[in-house]
Amino acid sequence: MKHLISIEDLNKSEIIKILDKSEEFEYVALGKKSLDILRGKILANLFFEPSTRTRISFECAMKRLGGDVINVSTQEASSMAKGETLADTIRVVSNYCDAIAIRHPLEGAARFAAENATVPVINAGDGAGQHPTQTLLDLYTIRKELGKIDGTKIALVGDLKYSRTIHSLIKALTLFKTKIYLVSPEALELPKEFLEELSGNIEKTKLEDIIEEVDVIYVTRIQKERFPDEEEYRKVAKSYRITAEIARRMKEEAIILHPLPRVDEISVEVDSMKQARYFKQAFYGVPVRMAILTEVML
Amino acid sequence: MKHLISIEDLNKSEIIKILDKSEEFEYVALGKKSLDILRGKILANLFFEPSTRTRISFECAMKRLGGDVINVSTQEASSMAKGETLADTIRVVSNYCDAIAIRHPLEGAARFAAENATVPVINAGDGAGQHPTQTLLDLYTIRKELGKIDGTKIALVGDLKYSRTIHSLIKALTLFKTKIYLVSPEALELPKEFLEELSGNIEKTKLEDIIEEVDVIYVTRIQKERFPDEEEYRKVAKSYRITAEIARRMKEEAIILHPLPRVDEISVEVDSMKQARYFKQAFYGVPVRMAILTEVML
Amino acid sequence: MKHLISIEDLNKSEIIKILDKSEEFEYVALGKKSLDILRGKILANLFFEPSTRTRISFECAMKRLGGDVINVSTQEASSMAKGETLADTIRVVSNYCDAIAIRHPLEGAARFAAENATVPVINAGDGAGQHPTQTLLDLYTIRKELGKIDGTKIALVGDLKYSRTIHSLIKALTLFKTKIYLVSPEALELPKEFLEELSGNIEKTKLEDIIEEVDVIYVTRIQKERFPDEEEYRKVAKSYRITAEIARRMKEEAIILHPLPRVDEISVEVDSMKQARYFKQAFYGVPVRMAILTEVML
Repeated sequence: MKHLISIEDLNKSEIIKILDKSEEFEYVALGKKSLDILRGKILANLFFEPSTRTRISFECAMKRLGGDVINVSTQEASSMAKGETLADTIRVVSNYCDAIAIRHPLEGAARFAAENATVPVINAGDGAGQHPTQTLLDLYTIRKELGKIDGTKIALVGDLKYSRTIHSLIKALTLFKTKIYLVSPEALELPKEFLEELSGNIEKTKLEDIIEEVDVIYVTRIQKERFPDEEEYRKVAKSYRITAEIARRMKEEAIILHPLPRVDEISVEVDSMKQARYFKQAFYGVPVRMAILTEVML
Repeated sequence: MKHLISIEDLNKSEIIKILDKSEEFEYVALGKKSLDILRGKILANLFFEPSTRTRISFECAMKRLGGDVINVSTQEASSMAKGETLADTIRVVSNYCDAIAIRHPLEGAARFAAENATVPVINAGDGAGQHPTQTLLDLYTIRKELGKIDGTKIALVGDLKYSRTIHSLIKALTLFKTKIYLVSPEALELPKEFLEELSGNIEKTKLEDIIEEVDVIYVTRIQKERFPDEEEYRKVAKSYRITAEIARRMKEEAIILHPLPRVDEISVEVDSMKQARYFKQAFYGVPVRMAILTEVML
Repeated sequence: MKHLISIEDLNKSEIIKILDKSEEFEYVALGKKSLDILRGKILANLFFEPSTRTRISFECAMKRLGGDVINVSTQEASSMAKGETLADTIRVVSNYCDAIAIRHPLEGAARFAAENATVPVINAGDGAGQHPTQTLLDLYTIRKELGKIDGTKIALVGDLKYSRTIHSLIKALTLFKTKIYLVSPEALELPKEFLEELSGNIEKTKLEDIIEEVDVIYVTRIQKERFPDEEEYRKVAKSYRITAEIARRMKEEAIILHPLPRVDEISVEVDSMKQARYFKQAFYGVPVRMAILTEVML
């Protein structure tokens, strides 16, 4: 049985295989072509914490492939969790579907679920742990929009300390020949232990110094709660904000990504610029999840 | 791209075209015939406030035509709204569906959504604004049950001041050759400015004076909150209640409508009388929404 | 129109007919075979109280047969209940589906719903009343796992006083030639009036005395709230707990059932023993509900 729990479970060629497969599904994801290859299959969306974007992206992927979805809302999942162990819940839900997409506030929950399931489990984000389908769609977006991943220069901007998305992505990027720039306020730097584990071309720097050079700016949200006072937060947030002025200094073909939701890390005037690809990135979640779903279910 | 935001965006012949189309779908709506013309299409029900009847009426319409639905519940929608702008939410959701039915507490939200969407948007009610699919099903019910709209005499009874349903319906009715009677307590009269805008055969009157003459009694709920004290509310509500005694004075072929939910504006003993058509009216929401969905999606 | 409100509405041959039909659907329930016999049909899951296992079991059954489901969540159902009578809600929902599965906190609600519906109603549990689909799946599990119901010896263990599941099951079992052992703490004995109504081979006893002899141990949860203090609860709960040690004394081919969720009435070490069939029992909910759904809808 195949599960998808962590991006680290995949080697480079497995990742590339999924990206290639995603490419084939793009037309279906756009609703321009109909496919029925998951007809009769059921995905259970078992979300112990809300993540509507991820949930409906999975649901769209299943349904556009002719499959169906059983949603277990956060309220329902929490109420099940009160009455029984996660192991029991997983064993019961396994009876009613062909795969489970699980979202859980605790790191490790997805792997534990996989150990107890009798159907494939896909990690849709577990605590500070992994969110492998997000990482795969990030990689897909880069490859699709730039034509390649190898050889690209990528700036990771914002909260590099707490962002699960960044941690997963950076590990995947080091499998490719990328140059990674870390751009963050001191309080939100990539944890030292994490950095030491990585073997790649990685460099701490300032946005100012690399803005004209990078191929990708990947922006994440800086959360107010991380700062002792609002004044400090405001100052920091402002200095890491991608404005139209900054975007205009980027290379013609460079792109700006963001896992969404965006608060004001990217100014709305950037939305209409050609560098802005974050809504397209959200769309790419569909073909990538189609590839993953067919991979584990067929 | 076609949206349906306000009944006022449609002229008489466009309305009639939708009613004609609805007629063709009635058999499918009853589940007596199967159609697959929306196979592969996804409607996103994006409901920022609960309206279960409207939501499941849309869902039934999609599914009976072979399409599918992604529901975003009020809890989910509100939590998205806290994290990002409505514009961003709409752009993201656009990626996962072929049309959006939006319900929102704020007037104008549906039009704003349409401006930001990359798929058609259907207004499923926005604040004190519009609820065009309700109006179309009201018109359809009148035409279907009476055989015509032109030439009918219609009494609008109850809360004419705050009812969005009434405001939309009255505007649509003035496109037809109808005689409209306004029957309401003084505190809940149709706003003067609104009345002045209308050019039709409209008259304020008492139920007593027209009960034997009208073809349609359209009843809306009088809400307790509109009155300074409970005693006053009780008195008013009682005098606008449709009882069996009143219904018996109506013409043989006349009909009683209500957008539902009904509290006690219509006595339950009326339910079994031939004039009662409010549950049938609820059913007509399905073929009418089928017509609208195929109109914007195909 | 056929409803399924109470197990007592069915005679023995009707029950056997449903069990036989369930047998035919097992392959489809496993997702190993595709069937489209409910294509175009819609089940409304109208749940006035949460019961996620039951809800998704129905949803899986519909979808694996090619049908579709409209879910009305507890929040939505409660909010409808505040605005209108249950009779009105049922009449409205009837318009949007081909059958209603209703779950309600009040005994008798399902029968009342059936009286007001214009589509078949299936009782998915109403208060202290009935839960006939659970009983049918319990009977199916016994027949399937033991090869027969007649001639079996069945111990009902735990809360026999308040458990709706037990009350329904015991009535159904008396239609078959079974020997029933009642095993419960004094405070949770089967109500005397209830026992007097039954005409079957029924005997109060201790687990100790029949453990080596029974074919089925059906365990239910002993709830903390039923006891004056935690100490008393702990003592009682412990003495009715099925441990591996107890399970090892059972006959080779004997089975342990539980309606789930399980808290600690059955020790987790039992899960891997061959007697443990409670997760399989949960699965059998799918073919049994398929049989019921096709019975009422086709």
